[in-house]
Parts: sequence; C-alpha cells; structure tokens
Amino acid sequence: MTTLQQVHRVLNFSAGPAVLPLSVLEEIQRDLMALPGAGISILEISHRSKTFEGILAQAEADIRTLAGVPENYRVLFLQGGASLQFSMVPMNLLGPGATADYIDGGSWADKAIKEAKKVGTVNVAASTKGENYSRIPTQAELTLTPGAAYVHMTANNTIEGTEYKTLPDVGDVPLVNDTSSDMFSKPIDVKRHALIYAGAQKNIGPAGLTLVIVRDDMLQRSLEKKATLPTMLNYAVHAENKSLYNTPPAFAVYTLGLVMKWLIANGGLSGMAKVNERKAAKLYAEIDRTGFYRGTARREDRSLMNVTFRLPNEELEKTFVKESTAAGLDGLKGHRSVGGMRASIYNAFPETGIDALVSFMKEFERKQG
Amino acid sequence: MTTLQQVHRVLNFSAGPAVLPLSVLEEIQRDLMALPGAGISILEISHRSKTFEGILAQAEADIRTLAGVPENYRVLFLQGGASLQFSMVPMNLLGPGATADYIDGGSWADKAIKEAKKVGTVNVAASTKGENYSRIPTQAELTLTPGAAYVHMTANNTIEGTEYKTLPDVGDVPLVNDTSSDMFSKPIDVKRHALIYAGAQKNIGPAGLTLVIVRDDMLQRSLEKKATLPTMLNYAVHAENKSLYNTPPAFAVYTLGLVMKWLIANGGLSGMAKVNERKAAKLYAEIDRTGFYRGTARREDRSLMNVTFRLPNEELEKTFVKESTAAGLDGLKGHRSVGGMRASIYNAFPETGIDALVSFMKEFERKQG
Repeated sequence: MTTLQQVHRVLNFSAGPAVLPLSVLEEIQRDLMALPGAGISILEISHRSKTFEGILAQAEADIRTLAGVPENYRVLFLQGGASLQFSMVPMNLLGPGATADYIDGGSWADKAIKEAKKVGTVNVAASTKGENYSRIPTQAELTLTPGAAYVHMTANNTIEGTEYKTLPDVGDVPLVNDTSSDMFSKPIDVKRHALIYAGAQKNIGPAGLTLVIVRDDMLQRSLEKKATLPTMLNYAVHAENKSLYNTPPAFAVYTLGLVMKWLIANGGLSGMAKVNERKAAKLYAEIDRTGFYRGTARREDRSLMNVTFRLPNEELEKTFVKESTAAGLDGLKGHRSVGGMRASIYNAFPETGIDALVSFMKEFERKQG
Repeated sequence: MTTLQQVHRVLNFSAGPAVLPLSVLEEIQRDLMALPGAGISILEISHRSKTFEGILAQAEADIRTLAGVPENYRVLFLQGGASLQFSMVPMNLLGPGATADYIDGGSWADKAIKEAKKVGTVNVAASTKGENYSRIPTQAELTLTPGAAYVHMTANNTIEGTEYKTLPDVGDVPLVNDTSSDMFSKPIDVKRHALIYAGAQKNIGPAGLTLVIVRDDMLQRSLEKKATLPTMLNYAVHAENKSLYNTPPAFAVYTLGLVMKWLIANGGLSGMAKVNERKAAKLYAEIDRTGFYRGTARREDRSLMNVTFRLPNEELEKTFVKESTAAGLDGLKGHRSVGGMRASIYNAFPETGIDALVSFMKEFERKQG
C-alpha cells in the first residue's frame, strides 16, 4: 500500500490552472484508488455507470443551488476551455444576416472577437484596447446594435486585472458572458444572462472542463443549425444528452463537484464574495500604501481575482520575482502584455497567503531603502 | 494528514473509461497533494511552468519511443475525444472539390461519416452495416476514389468486437486511423498513416484527452484554412504551440505520461501485444469450448480488446450480467446494438481477471446443466 508523506506546498499565485481547496485535494487523494462503494477509481469508471451519473447529477444540482440557476437554463459540462467557446458561441447563436455585439475589454475578449468574425458579422460595441485594457468600457461608451443576436462580454480580465462590478445594460438582447476567471467568486445573476461560460481551471475545478449555463431559448438556434453544425459543437445535443453525448472529462467533473460542495460548506457565493473582498482589499491597500507599488488597472475596475501591479522599474521587478519565488510565493510574474506582477487570488487561495505576500512586499520595499 | 485505507477493487470490464495500471493509480495518489519538488499539485500547476512543460515533453518523448514516431510527425494532446476528431479531420483535411473515402466497419465509423458529410464530399468505400458490423470490410470490397483527400478507417470496433489485423492498402492516399480502442495495445506502423487519433480513456489514460499523431504535410492543409477554421480546431495551431495554445487538460496529460512509462517498463508495444494475445486467446477459447457461448464477431476479425459474446437466450444473458456483477466482475453487459456480453480487456486489465472470468463462465454454464 502506498504511504503518504507530509508534503511541502508553496503559495500558488498562478492565474490558472490555480490553487484548489486543500480539503478537495485530500478527498481526491483518499478515494483515488476506488470510489467508496464502487470498487473502481474515478479515473476508470464508466460514464454510463449509476455511480458516475450520480456524481454528474449532484454537481449540476449543487451548481443550481449555489447560483440559483432558474429552471429554464441547462447546465453543461464541456471540453475545450473558453477558447473553444469563442467559436461555439457564434457557431450556435449567430445566424446569417444577424450581428453580434462584442465588448472588447481585454485580451481574451479580443480573441473571442477574432473567432466570431470567422463565423459571422461582428460589431465591436466598445473597446479599451487603446488604453492597454486598463479599464472596463463604460455603459455610455457602448454602441449596441438594435436586435443584435447577442452581446458578448468578459466578466473579469485575467491578464489586465479588471472586472465588471455590475452587468452592462443590454436591454432585451441576449447577454453572453465569459466568466472564466470570476465564476462563483461572488453571486451571479444568472437570469440576466442568455449564456454563461467558464473554463474550470481558475475558480471551480481543474483544467480540461468548461462549464456552460445556457437558457433554453438559445438552444432553438442550435437546433436550427443541426444539419451543418458539428455535433460536438452543438449546445442542444449536449443539453439533450445531459453532457453525456460522448465520454465527458469524468475526473474533472468529479473534482468540480467536490469544489461545489466546498463552496456550499463555506458560505456559498455571498460567503465567498466577503472573503474575496477582504483578501483583495488587503492586497490593494498594500499596493496603494506608499506609491512604491503601482496598480495597473483603473481603481473602480480593479479585479478581486487578479491583482496586477508594477514596481518602480523593471530591474526591481525581476528581483521581486526571483526573491518572492525563493520565499515560496510562486507564480507572481505578470503577463508579458502588462508586465510587472500579477497575484491571482481565486476562491481557494488562502487569506494567510495574502498576509504572507503583504509581509513580503513591505519587507521588499523596506530593503530598497 | 489523510490516511489511506485498504480499498476493495472490482474487476472492471468497462469499454471506456477503463481500468488503469494499479501502479499508475498509486503514483497519482502518492503525489496528489504536490508534485515532488514543485510544492503544487498537478491539478493546480500552471501549464506555463517548467514542471508541466517537462511533463508534457516527457509524455511526447515516451510516445515517440514507444511507437517509433518518425521526425516528420507531430504529437498533439487535444480535447473532445474521437467524437470531435470526427469533425476536425474533415474540417482540416477535406478541401472543396475533393472526396474523402470512409471505410464503414462499425458504429463509430458510421458516426465519423455523418460528421464528415457535414463538411464535404464523402465516398463510403465499403460497409458491413448490413451484417451488423460483425466483420471488417475486406481489401477486395474497397471502392477507393483515385486522388481522395484521405481514407478514414477505424482500427478496432469497441461495440462490435472486431479489429483490423493488417492495415488496408490505400496506395499513396493519406490514411487516417481512429485507434481509440486499440492504441498502443500492439505495435503500430505510424509511417503508413497520415493521421492517427485516439481518445485516451481506453488504453492510454483517463477521459478528457485525445492523442493525435499527424504528419507534417497534412498541417499544410490546416494552414490553408486558417482564415476560416476555428483556431481551437486547427491542427497546425496546436502543432505550432506544442499543444499549449490554450490550457491543456494537464492532469490527463500527466496520467497518460505515467501510463506511457508503465508501457515502456512492461515490454513496450510488442510486450503488450504478447500479453494481450494471450489474454484474448484464453477468453475466446472458453467462448468456443462447447457452443454454450457464441462469439458475435467473425473469427478472423476478432478484437483482442473487446470480446463480444452471447448466451443461448436473453433470459440467461440477464442472469449472467446479474450474477457476474455480484461476483465482482463489473461492466460485462454488451452494447444494446449487439446484445449479450462484452468483456473489454485493455492493456491494463490483469490476466488474473481473465482467469476469473473464464472460471465464472465455466461454472455458469455447468449450473445450467
């Protein structure tokens, strides 16, 4: 029998894949050889088995409970990440002769736009690209198309460290939201959306799983395209088959399910929001304390999930990365398009880790004299 | 710290997801909380980290060693299973004005054909559908299109229990092979293929990962379609980015890597073939022993991976399923389109499990008097 050793774990500030709750990892480890009562590992179990169908159904039920998903929405477990959704959304929802509005508030929105343009007509309703995406486009800036097929937004910009504080007003036009980096970090008003998607690997699970929540009326558009749309890219097919049209990423669904249980046990989405606000506030307070550190995102739009900041010069930034890594604070180097530092502090990132980073930052600044 | 308990494991005859090597599960369990030296779990680690890049590169290197993959082939780790490949293959390789030949030797080939027809012109080169796919189409039956874009075949038919013993002769036309259910169960002559794909969840890993091996000249076709093909469905993009265009299913890649190491340590593909031939021979010998059991596949085409057989009547088949499950032999119920029993006995299925099934079968027959 395998014996477990006490393991050393660093503080993981990675933007995704990202830190998971310790208790979730412990449960996965405990049951890895065989699911209780099944005699088969989650890595080996048939997706047609009662055991796995139960795991999938429970994950969906917990998602519905957590987010208050209305009855007329389907919950889908897909593959390919947000990047595949960039294509699936227009392939399913954008018909010939129609226009889709895209709000270009960050690097990932830009990628979504590029993919949508391969499929149909796109109107960029607003863009902050010229400001290096350092802020979210305002409501007043939006040039929306009357009768658009949908409006696409990105709730949180992982690279640039910004996020929407309230949903944009798009009237009756279906709102499609890429929530990959803030999904379930705070309450979400599902009924204001037509479709929500999120790669799991930041707040809700491991890499290799995409969560999609879609309103029933959108599936009608998928059905109309059934003859030409690849089956695996058709939302309606996955909805009809309860995400079991083909073999799903079973282990990732199981892990997401454990994370959902952890969320429920830890105060649900409003409980998470409180902790996440407190964690981010501590870190932004340190960034703003003396002017040595400098936040890159506009204050009103600062993300609770991805905290981006710079130091007085690039030389110091290199030193900061080197010394923080050596101190067991891993993954703080920012994305090359923004530079500097990025601390991704998703749901499962412990508050003690924020305290450790703040202490390190204070000491680092002090040492520069 | 979590403590491990001795777990009861049943014999898992599932067609996929399927049994994994015990030593692989033990290593996953041991290192689940943190990869040695990294301080971060494989479920949390950045796909841009040196540690993960090393895991991915090693998995590729081991695949190249195992299968003798020539230099002019790329090894890709994708998502979506064989079902998404049914669309990606024609979307990348079938241009306007061209025809793709499909050999219809089983239920999954039939699905591949349906998806290809959405993309372009398909010629069904031969079909055994009228014989309930109980055999592989012969070379003489193939009506191949001169200058076809490619010929598509399915190496092993999971549902019907048949497999190719030698590759069909398709001349200079690129051969595309769905090897989902016999990948790395025996040596594979990669250089006779233009593209090989396999869902991982049968012989080579967990669900949620698709292995693609593609010859460089095929990527040129993908590049020509770059402007219109969704980026995530473009083989050339994944090849250029070494499967890191977006976040890969990191845990599944890691697990596949461990399975590759297990294969190498256990005699490689020729070693596997010997064991697999012996395992299947034992089971088929029992099926043929008295006539009580009846194989459904033509003898010359019998699969070494999926052994399908029937009993004298459906009543006895129900009893067989019930009693075998109770005896710890799980997943023997056949696919509804064939009926009867199916024993999937992939690489990691232990020979002692075959002996247990054979004993059960003998005793079951004896009890019927």
